[in-house]
Amino acid sequence: MHSTINDFNNYRSKMNDVILSKNNKVINRLFNLDTNTYADGALSSKTKEMLGLVASMVLRCDDCVKYHLGKCHEAGITTDEMYEIFAVANIVGGTIVIPHTRRAAEYWEALMIE
Amino acid sequence: MHSTINDFNNYRSKMNDVILSKNNKVINRLFNLDTNTYADGALSSKTKEMLGLVASMVLRCDDCVKYHLGKCHEAGITTDEMYEIFAVANIVGGTIVIPHTRRAAEYWEALMIE
Amino acid sequence: MHSTINDFNNYRSKMNDVILSKNNKVINRLFNLDTNTYADGALSSKTKEMLGLVASMVLRCDDCVKYHLGKCHEAGITTDEMYEIFAVANIVGGTIVIPHTRRAAEYWEALMIE
Amino acid sequence: MHSTINDFNNYRSKMNDVILSKNNKVINRLFNLDTNTYADGALSSKTKEMLGLVASMVLRCDDCVKYHLGKCHEAGITTDEMYEIFAVANIVGGTIVIPHTRRAAEYWEALMIE
Amino acid sequence: MHSTINDFNNYRSKMNDVILSKNNKVINRLFNLDTNTYADGALSSKTKEMLGLVASMVLRCDDCVKYHLGKCHEAGITTDEMYEIFAVANIVGGTIVIPHTRRAAEYWEALMIE
Amino acid sequence: MHSTINDFNNYRSKMNDVILSKNNKVINRLFNLDTNTYADGALSSKTKEMLGLVASMVLRCDDCVKYHLGKCHEAGITTDEMYEIFAVANIVGGTIVIPHTRRAAEYWEALMIE
Repeated sequence: MHSTINDFNNYRSKMNDVILSKNNKVINRLFNLDTNTYADGALSSKTKEMLGLVASMVLRCDDCVKYHLGKCHEAGITTDEMYEIFAVANIVGGTIVIPHTRRAAEYWEALMIE
Repeated sequence: MHSTINDFNNYRSKMNDVILSKNNKVINRLFNLDTNTYADGALSSKTKEMLGLVASMVLRCDDCVKYHLGKCHEAGITTDEMYEIFAVANIVGGTIVIPHTRRAAEYWEALMIE
Repeated sequence: MHSTINDFNNYRSKMNDVILSKNNKVINRLFNLDTNTYADGALSSKTKEMLGLVASMVLRCDDCVKYHLGKCHEAGITTDEMYEIFAVANIVGGTIVIPHTRRAAEYWEALMIE
Repeated sequence: MHSTINDFNNYRSKMNDVILSKNNKVINRLFNLDTNTYADGALSSKTKEMLGLVASMVLRCDDCVKYHLGKCHEAGITTDEMYEIFAVANIVGGTIVIPHTRRAAEYWEALMIE
Repeated sequence: MHSTINDFNNYRSKMNDVILSKNNKVINRLFNLDTNTYADGALSSKTKEMLGLVASMVLRCDDCVKYHLGKCHEAGITTDEMYEIFAVANIVGGTIVIPHTRRAAEYWEALMIE
Repeated sequence: MHSTINDFNNYRSKMNDVILSKNNKVINRLFNLDTNTYADGALSSKTKEMLGLVASMVLRCDDCVKYHLGKCHEAGITTDEMYEIFAVANIVGGTIVIPHTRRAAEYWEALMIE
């Protein structure tokens, strides 16, 4: 696995453990709820991951973007589909999304060469 | 057609005409590009409208939300599907999205009783 | 009760009922979690309402601001204390918070004359 | 004077008086500093008003936009110049700025027919 | 002192000196006003630092978060209290606040082992 | 050329090439439109770069800020003028803009010693 992906996953995992260990009920339940949000339902998990990704892009949260890119990759989204998601994010959110798209594109390349 | 929907469409249409009549090339091309963004491609137009909606919700743009709600309704999205889009928006964007979800829910009801 | 306050509470209550009636598990659990967030804990409910208010102000969510203003009023926060919360919000969030402060100030006056 | 402009100015003025009457030092000094920001300096007041306007547009603060539109009008900015400011705001901030541009365009028309 | 804390303080201090040395009156007065905002008043300095922190978290400004974490630590805020502030920020601001909470949690751990 | 500037330009250029190579029509046309936005028109290119900079600062996009700082430097903007742009951004956007101003100030120093 590409080191960029590894580093992201490891830091995320390590700090989630720190946060959850404090046993703040609201935070721990929110983390749990977050996972449930993307499960299959009326919409497929794949569609929901695309929704989570575009929301993360327009809100310009690089780490959220990386997380959903990983999930979209697992769900079998193609590069053409991915760039159409990027297109919606850049049109809705404007050129301030471009730097985040650069980092997303780089991470996507890393996911594709695994 | 419900007056809420009518009023929204009329104001949008009237002011778009004013804006486009000024012949600012960048703005007019952006409006054109905006329309193209949601056309069928690698992803269906329906999926893209869902992406446009969730992006508008987390960015808390009520008028953008109304526009995409109308398009999602035309695309045949069901209420169960719609509330799963709302769920992603509220989880990603937090409780500040709730007031916008209230207005979205009201507009969605108006669309459903047409 | 001042009609501004009444109108806000009624619309909020009516649309929350519509939303909750759809039985989307993620949304309904998030609404529930939202309520729990402001309960007494290591920090008092009063302090948490102040935190919720300042967060709502810098995110410029007028309806969220109104809700927390009502809760802060119930918790016995004084006008001098309230304006110090406004001050933090305006310094952190900048002059774009001023129009929201105007509406918050108007709503606060309405709460004080009840 | 167009009633839209009048209403905006009157509400702004009335609520600023309420806010300033509370004598919160931080807020009152911030209001004062805000005025100084747009005075002639190394950059002209006219240029600074354009900067204030574009910043308000991308942050999607309708009331801030109206205020700076009024100031830009006083500074003699033409409609062609104004739409180039709108263009920058829409490209940088994306299509979520469009609804705010509609309201800005409407207010600008009102200012032009005075 | 932990190197993370040291690095943050040193860069902040060095660049503040550069900025203040340019003698822009508006900026220098804003920096001064910023300091005054968190002084004891109707609300304690401790409460105001909590307000500054939660505002910084929902606006997702990592450096602002670090600064207020340091001040909250000096003010004697406990880890349980801190995680209740984190909880408000994550509920109000949504899961896009989580990556910033991870970095905040890491910085808080560094402050606690000093 | 200062390594900070070089690194920024190289990464930007490399990733833009990756993005454009995917031939997503919406993205490629948006990139093209972005360039046209800042050309001389009713407003000078110099004025538009200032507008692009202040918009990027209040939206807190460090990479967008760096890009426009480079363009402003090419356009002959002085340090006194630059800090008046910074002042507008910090007043409108609040103290959360300060950390971005620190990084902007550092990049501006690097541009000035070229």
